[in-house]
Parts: sequence; C-alpha cells; structure tokens
Amino acid sequence: MTGTSSSSKEQARSPSADGSSAKPAPATGLEGVVVAQTSISTIDGSAGKLSYRGYDIHDLAEHSTFEETAFLLWEGRLPDRGELEAVRRELREQRALPPEAVALLESAPRQSNPMAVLRTITSAIALTDPDADDNAQPALRRKAVRLTAQLGPIVAGFHRHRQGAARLEPREHLDYAGNFLYLLNGREPTPEEARIFDVCLILHADHGFNASTFSARVTVATLSDIYSGVTSALGTLKGSLHGGANEAVMKMLLELQGSGESPEDAIRRRLERKEKISGFGHRVYKTEDPRATHLRRFSEELGSQRGDGTLFEMSRRIEAFMRAEKDIYSNVDFYSASTYYQLGIPTDLFTPIFAMSRVAGWTAHVMEQLANNRLIRPRSEYVGERNLRYVSLEQR
Amino acid sequence: MTGTSSSSKEQARSPSADGSSAKPAPATGLEGVVVAQTSISTIDGSAGKLSYRGYDIHDLAEHSTFEETAFLLWEGRLPDRGELEAVRRELREQRALPPEAVALLESAPRQSNPMAVLRTITSAIALTDPDADDNAQPALRRKAVRLTAQLGPIVAGFHRHRQGAARLEPREHLDYAGNFLYLLNGREPTPEEARIFDVCLILHADHGFNASTFSARVTVATLSDIYSGVTSALGTLKGSLHGGANEAVMKMLLELQGSGESPEDAIRRRLERKEKISGFGHRVYKTEDPRATHLRRFSEELGSQRGDGTLFEMSRRIEAFMRAEKDIYSNVDFYSASTYYQLGIPTDLFTPIFAMSRVAGWTAHVMEQLANNRLIRPRSEYVGERNLRYVSLEQR
Repeated sequence: MTGTSSSSKEQARSPSADGSSAKPAPATGLEGVVVAQTSISTIDGSAGKLSYRGYDIHDLAEHSTFEETAFLLWEGRLPDRGELEAVRRELREQRALPPEAVALLESAPRQSNPMAVLRTITSAIALTDPDADDNAQPALRRKAVRLTAQLGPIVAGFHRHRQGAARLEPREHLDYAGNFLYLLNGREPTPEEARIFDVCLILHADHGFNASTFSARVTVATLSDIYSGVTSALGTLKGSLHGGANEAVMKMLLELQGSGESPEDAIRRRLERKEKISGFGHRVYKTEDPRATHLRRFSEELGSQRGDGTLFEMSRRIEAFMRAEKDIYSNVDFYSASTYYQLGIPTDLFTPIFAMSRVAGWTAHVMEQLANNRLIRPRSEYVGERNLRYVSLEQR
Repeated sequence: MTGTSSSSKEQARSPSADGSSAKPAPATGLEGVVVAQTSISTIDGSAGKLSYRGYDIHDLAEHSTFEETAFLLWEGRLPDRGELEAVRRELREQRALPPEAVALLESAPRQSNPMAVLRTITSAIALTDPDADDNAQPALRRKAVRLTAQLGPIVAGFHRHRQGAARLEPREHLDYAGNFLYLLNGREPTPEEARIFDVCLILHADHGFNASTFSARVTVATLSDIYSGVTSALGTLKGSLHGGANEAVMKMLLELQGSGESPEDAIRRRLERKEKISGFGHRVYKTEDPRATHLRRFSEELGSQRGDGTLFEMSRRIEAFMRAEKDIYSNVDFYSASTYYQLGIPTDLFTPIFAMSRVAGWTAHVMEQLANNRLIRPRSEYVGERNLRYVSLEQR
C-alpha cells in the first residue's frame, strides 16, 4: 500500500469536454476521502502509529504471533488459551492444499508471474469449497482460516514446482511462519529466522483501506463471496505501486551491490534523472512508518547472523541520504527487502508473501463489510464528447 | 450495477467507539462521490439518458453491432469500414480458447458457480499469454480483444461441459452474438434471435463507474495488469446486488407462473413482507432506464415469435403495479430476464452473459485508467477501540 517518492505529485489531468481548462479536476485516487467506518485497524500518519483492534503494532510485534494476530483481526479481541489453541489447530488442519489446487499449481508454466498463479489458484479453490457461496458468519470465518492457511503453501508449492523440486508436506510441529520457510527452502528455519518471519507477517497483516483491502471490500459489497474478494485483493496487490515496491527496492540494492558505486552517488544520479526511489514515502505516514522500525532491526540482525552486513549497511546509507536530501522517510518496503532476501526468499516472491500475511486483514475486512453492507458505487465526471450523431458506415 | 427497490434506503450504521450516537456516519458506498474523470460513457439519471463516447444508446441499439460498439468504447470513435473489418476479424481469430483453458474448464466440478468458473479461467488465461504483464497501449488493446473474444466461449464451454454435451467449435460465418448462442445451444439462432442478443450485448457494454468497472480500475491503478482488472470485475459482478438481479427477477417470474396467483397479489404480498422486488429502481436513474425500453420490446417480440406471451404479459403487469403502487421504474434487469430466458439462456448464465458484454467496457476503463493513472486509496473512519494494553496469555 505504499506509494513512491514521486507518487504524491501525480495528478489526473484530462481536458474538459468543452475545451475550457478552468474547471478543477475532481478528487482523484480518493486521497483523504473517507469511504466507510471500520474497527479493524487505524493509522495515525502524523504520529507514525499503527494499531490493530486497539493494540499498538509495537506490542504485537514484541509479544504476539501471526496466529494470534489473525484471531485478533477476525474476532476483535485477543484469544484466551483455548481459543488460541483452536485457531492454531484450524490453521494447521487447513494448510494441506486440495488435490485440484495441486494439479493446477503443477500445470502452471514455470515462468508464470507468481502473483498471477496465486490469484488463479485462490479463485480455483472456491470451485471445490462447499462453503464458497455461503456468506453467513460461521462459513465466512471458516473460509478466512482456510484462505489464510493455504496462501503460503500455494506460494511455496509453486516455487518448488518452477524449480523442478519436489513439493513438501507441512510439518506438524512448525507454526505458520516456520512451516512456510520450510516448505519454500526445504530446510527448517532457525528459531530466530522463524520468529523474524513471524513478526514480518504480523507487521503486514492489515493497514486500513489500502488499495487491495479496498478492492476486496468493493468486490464483496455487491454481496459477492470471500473468494472473489480475496482474488480481487491479490490482483490489486500485484501492481508495482502496491505490493511491488519491496521487489523494486531489492533490485536496486542488488544493482548497487554489483556496480561498486557508492550508494549516495547512485541515488543522487537516480534523483537527477527523476527516477523513483522505491521504499520511501507514504501517502499516509508523514513520519517513520512504525513497521520500518522493526524491519530495520531484522535486516541488521540477519546480517549479523550471516556474518555479512553489506546489505544492511548499504540500506542504512541510502536511508540517511534520502532523509538528508529529500526529508523523506523509509516505509515498510525498504527494509523488508533486505530482510526477506536474507531469509532466503526469492525477490519475485516478496509480493506473494505480503499476500500470505495481508490475507488475514483482507478476510477480516470482508467479514466487516458483509456484516453491515452497502454497495460501493461511486460517480465519475464525464469529460468526453456529447450529443454525437450516429452516421452510417457508408458516410464515415 | 442495479440496486433494488430497497437498496436506496440502506445506511451503514455502526456505533461510534465512544458510545455516542450523535456522530454522523460518513458517506458510505461513495454514493454521489466523484472519483475520477472519464470519457467512456455518461448517464443522465434524471433524463434517463445513457451514451457511449457521445453516442446515444438508442442510436447504437438501432444501428450498431456489438463489435462496432466495442471498437467505439476502446478507441473513442466509430470505425471506418477497414477498421470494422479488422476488429471483427480479430475478435473471430481470438475466440478459440487456449488448450490450458479448455482443460481447466473441463476439470471444473459440474455444480460450480458459473461466475466462479469464469473468474478462475479468465485469471488462468493470463498464465499462457505472453502479453499478460505488458501495460503498453498496443498490448492492452490486443488483450482487450482477446478477453472480449474469449469470455463468451468460456461461458458456453462450461455450460456444455456441465451438461455432459460435446464442446463446439466457433462457426466462422457467425458474429460474436450469434456464435455464442450457437456454442451454447448447439443450434444456430434465427437472424432475429441473433440480432436481439447482439443488441442486448450493446446495451450492457458500459455504464459509468458501476461497482465491477470501479473494482477493475481500483485493481489496475496499482499498475497491476488487465487480467487482474477483469478478474476483479468478474468477482464483483458475481454479487447479487450487481449482476445477480436479473437472475432474481427470473426466479420470481417462474415462481409466479408456477403458483397461479395474480402478479399483482403476489407482488403486494411480497411488499407487505418487506421483500425486495428485483429489477426495479436504480441508484442513478430516476426515470426509465433507457436500456429497459429496448429489452421490453425484445421480451414482447420473442414471446410473439414463440407464440407464448405469458412471460411478457406477467412482466408488464408487475411493472404497471410497481409504477402505480411505489412510483418506481423497471431497470435493465427486469426485462432482460424474460428476454434471455426466451433466447434459451439458462437463468444461472444471466450474469456470465452480462460479463461477456461488459468486458468491452471494463477493458476500455482499464486502458483509460492506465493512460492517466493515479493509485485509488481511500481513507476509513476508525470507530473501534483505542489504546488497549496487550496482556499476556496468562493474564487473560
């Protein structure tokens, strides 16, 4: 849901139909427009605060787990011991993919865009889910668990498939985060790696009415179903202005590392060429993105553990330079790039793993939307031709 | 994009966090909110006027074809003879489904929701389209043709599959509308049937920022791709407040026909029970929906041709009753129900055929959005708990 350093300057400019340029363009991009009420998450952009259901993201990052956070997002409160056990068990039980999904995954061309694969298989799972079109609360809750449990295994399964490696079965003793890293890499993560990835999933699980969450709500507000909502969200997250930003950051870091140029010089040249520097600035935060605080620390820790602080060091210098030159803060995408990379996650899976976290929020928003629904149907300002006379083909 | 007789009364009502009920709810559903400029179609709700690219829908219904209308939506002007020939040829060439899509279609469970099948296969086609992630104008235009050409054959192909009937190959001499009816029913339509269906496709091809079109724009505004946009639109159209309305009308008509009760009595009883009467009222039109004018005529004509005017007669009486009792007009969905039914289209395919028309508009909107893009990311009003203290599991 992040923009880029230059996105805040974009403006829709179309000529008005009558040729007058005096008419102001309407609010575009719905920036600052309140579309609905929510009690799921709230962002205080000027204070740099994010909370889920009233709990500060820093507390959740320190004390919670992804499973507990998902329960919190869905139910609006922290689970007691029995409820936490239950949601962990449900997520474990649901993570085996249905055979149709496995078949589809293994028939996907290896060079496919992983987000297009994830979008397709998520949509396909609906065809074999007897709950698919049941919008009553108990069925929605079951599907929220199912979708959350399955997105990770789909991502890991496709990665194994495209590498020609055997698909792995989940390991019972591993939780959601650790299991994903195992399914992806074929080795169990260290407890430190698993915990860092678990917190990454907590940090990305919800973020107000970002574009993908909003698209899920627009979709289900016609009284469509949760699979349609999550499929829309996946397609929306796929875009480079949303999920793609940390991939762009990683590409830049690797380019810089290869070039030998100093990070400061390289960024200065990019800025002079008016290029976007991904991973900086945000439409909502006007100070440090609170998620960046944790990801910076993880990037540093993973560098230490691997005995190679190069990526972190380079990131730190770019951040300091952007702060000094442009007075702009790093966002969630900047340090998630080097964190994920050091966890062994391929760059083109950064957006899919964003999805496997955000699906907890998407499904919470779908349930909230359907609990108090209203069709989302805006207006547009027509600026095209008017009152044209249809002329026959012969006269054109 | 239609609401129902009671939808205009819906209001989002959530308690505010502090328990006060004095705080007004924010604009919900974006009703009346202008989100962007467009030059594709415009609706004058009080005059009951709809035009595509400046051409009145009545002129297009009388003189144009679906192929020509699609060109108009995409290019912003009517084609000359060579251009019309070209777009007709392109649509014919692209309508054969790729083998992967056929395989997926034939592996779908027969009881699948046809819109879920259409959503899944549309998403899957991206995996084998080398153009899939190319957002440059020539590639977008090729994909607009491809998506428009293939949606109909997917719908017909799934219907044949679920009936256990052999899939049919397109017939070269049939245009888009006629070919679809042939692929679906296994017999070539009469010229009158083909022309009526062709006009139905023209009438449904675009309609401002309806919910599905809006969701396609939200999706691609992250710089995602046209397949993601159309997949979102399909999932959004699937909901009963959008694409589902004419299916609900048909169900009601068949129920009434079976019951023997007079239409007036039956509707009165439903209104007394506060039930929605689908096919009436519209968030935008405050007078007759101009599309209804044509569909009423088609419903009548098809009844005459079949020598059975029962459905039309019943529809006419319901319309008169609703007008007299509730001062409310029929919308596009009301007469499309009996029209499609009399064309031999199964009720649960009404929404998929809506999609195979509206895809021309969706793809035009995707191109317009990407030509002058701005991320669509609104705000929400947070009404949940604040500043909760995280307590450990032991203390809960």
